[in-house]
Amino acid sequence: MRSALYTGNSTIVVEERPPVPPGPGEVQIAVAYTGICGTDLHILHGNMDSRVRIPQTIGHEMSGQVAAVGADIAGLAVGAPVTVMPLRWCGSCPACQAGHHHICHRLTFIGIDSVGAMQQRWTVPADVVVPLPGDLPLTHGALVEPTAVAVHDVRRAGLRAGEKAVVIGGGPIGVLIALVARSVDADITLVEVDARRRAIAGELGIRTLDPASDDLAGETAAWTGGAGAAVAFEVSGSAAGITTAVDLLAVRGRLVVVGIHNQRREIDLFRIFWRELTIAGARVYRREDYDTAIDLLRAGRVGAETLITHVEPLSNAAAAFDALVGGGGVMKVLIDCRETS
Amino acid sequence: MRSALYTGNSTIVVEERPPVPPGPGEVQIAVAYTGICGTDLHILHGNMDSRVRIPQTIGHEMSGQVAAVGADIAGLAVGAPVTVMPLRWCGSCPACQAGHHHICHRLTFIGIDSVGAMQQRWTVPADVVVPLPGDLPLTHGALVEPTAVAVHDVRRAGLRAGEKAVVIGGGPIGVLIALVARSVDADITLVEVDARRRAIAGELGIRTLDPASDDLAGETAAWTGGAGAAVAFEVSGSAAGITTAVDLLAVRGRLVVVGIHNQRREIDLFRIFWRELTIAGARVYRREDYDTAIDLLRAGRVGAETLITHVEPLSNAAAAFDALVGGGGVMKVLIDCRETS
Repeated sequence: MRSALYTGNSTIVVEERPPVPPGPGEVQIAVAYTGICGTDLHILHGNMDSRVRIPQTIGHEMSGQVAAVGADIAGLAVGAPVTVMPLRWCGSCPACQAGHHHICHRLTFIGIDSVGAMQQRWTVPADVVVPLPGDLPLTHGALVEPTAVAVHDVRRAGLRAGEKAVVIGGGPIGVLIALVARSVDADITLVEVDARRRAIAGELGIRTLDPASDDLAGETAAWTGGAGAAVAFEVSGSAAGITTAVDLLAVRGRLVVVGIHNQRREIDLFRIFWRELTIAGARVYRREDYDTAIDLLRAGRVGAETLITHVEPLSNAAAAFDALVGGGGVMKVLIDCRETS
Repeated sequence: MRSALYTGNSTIVVEERPPVPPGPGEVQIAVAYTGICGTDLHILHGNMDSRVRIPQTIGHEMSGQVAAVGADIAGLAVGAPVTVMPLRWCGSCPACQAGHHHICHRLTFIGIDSVGAMQQRWTVPADVVVPLPGDLPLTHGALVEPTAVAVHDVRRAGLRAGEKAVVIGGGPIGVLIALVARSVDADITLVEVDARRRAIAGELGIRTLDPASDDLAGETAAWTGGAGAAVAFEVSGSAAGITTAVDLLAVRGRLVVVGIHNQRREIDLFRIFWRELTIAGARVYRREDYDTAIDLLRAGRVGAETLITHVEPLSNAAAAFDALVGGGGVMKVLIDCRETS
């Protein structure tokens, strides 16, 4: 079978590799589509070399069909459409004991800390396999994982119908957050610096602002009757993004930190105090977020056709990464891993 | 009557002034005790000259008895013991419309933005007067306002019985937060750099740590079984305090920002994200916080006798401020404003 491997030095190589037969407690999936995540770009750029084992097949946003199961596995028929929730927790640390398995102290992430989905056959523990509805296109199924991120973020915000929310950063996760927020009847503005990304969001009916040319404070004041936004999602990972988010919030406003901030950021704690703001971190997802994500995708609520801007065959995996690095009008890039492709 | 006035240049002067008779909708209080708050020190040091009108009588933590009422005031008998909740809100801004009167966009604070309680007779709007139980000593009644701050902070944390909470900063508000937290059966550690303040907290049965010599991370890990603290209260207003608070929190831990941070602070947002922490600002109080504060003081749950380390007559108001500026073993300083004193 073909497999795309990260070999270090910002390089992706496609090679023939033997498929791994499923052992006890395992499932082998015939991968259909694997999306490229921002985390995969971080791996490509060498920022996560302490976690991956070079050469390593990466990738964790995927869909496929059950190809084979371990002898002890029941309830997963060969051919059934599936995705994967790529988290493994210990079950015994204080976080797990408190019910927060998704932020386990020893959490491992399949596709980063172990072999990922950018290959034709992927063998994983059965307990991470999530069945997909038969009527969900497998291209859309590859969006379940990033959609679950957005669902988790919106849940962490406690976003309610009618509330006004600002999303800072209009990449795939930012746009998905805006769409999930709209699905709970919140009123959304997306702030994104790239005109082509704003255009894609606009196609999906999302109101957008350009932080480089629009008066964000004035626009938000007009939009919210002087109150400010009830909720802000910081998805850009930038210093400017966090400052903007804090500045646009209403009294008792809630800021959800979604983007990765690898440096400490200066925060206006006086404003946090004065307006009784809340800042909450949100990381990955829980199983209920997967269930909601599947429901939203099946109902056509997250614009999958518009978000998937590129599909490349597995043999061109390096080109798929190049397209995403190019940025701009590229939103979600899928790698077609089907054996017939 | 005597009145202590802030006259600028770090100076408090006691003068004879005519009392203000209560007009319609007003109550004149014969002040018994007025506490000195950290905010009063900020005023003394000239940091709030844009808000006060020099020369101005300041002070807002107080107790007293009704001396006279406006013609239209019913239900407040002369002689009744009272305190004041010194907030005035507009009722029409977005914060008030959302029910958050205590963080009204146009909130004014009596004793800062208008004349305060460091005088023998204080005339205030009737709607800020809060009756006190007849069996509560008036010295303790002067602690209702700072205790209500602590009650509000503990409420904002959503602190529950059995949870472990760290309080960073052991001045009067920090110690009151620890005591209010204990009243909901939480398990408390107070971090305070001053040995004499740690000793006072220790007298009240509060476990303390010294950030200069104790291993806060190691002690917290041992205390919480490796989990970290469920809640942290940042009361020090310092850069080190906020870093310590973030570092000591468990997965899903909640940090309440109580201290005033007049500079932007560097925050480890990656840890906020990774552990799904929450940071919430908490400012002043709501009427229900006053009610709880009165109940706790009446029940002897907040160590009033230990916290009140100094009582000075109004004629010595400047000395009372000097004692607090001296710091250390001084905790709560009351000014005795009784006409018989």
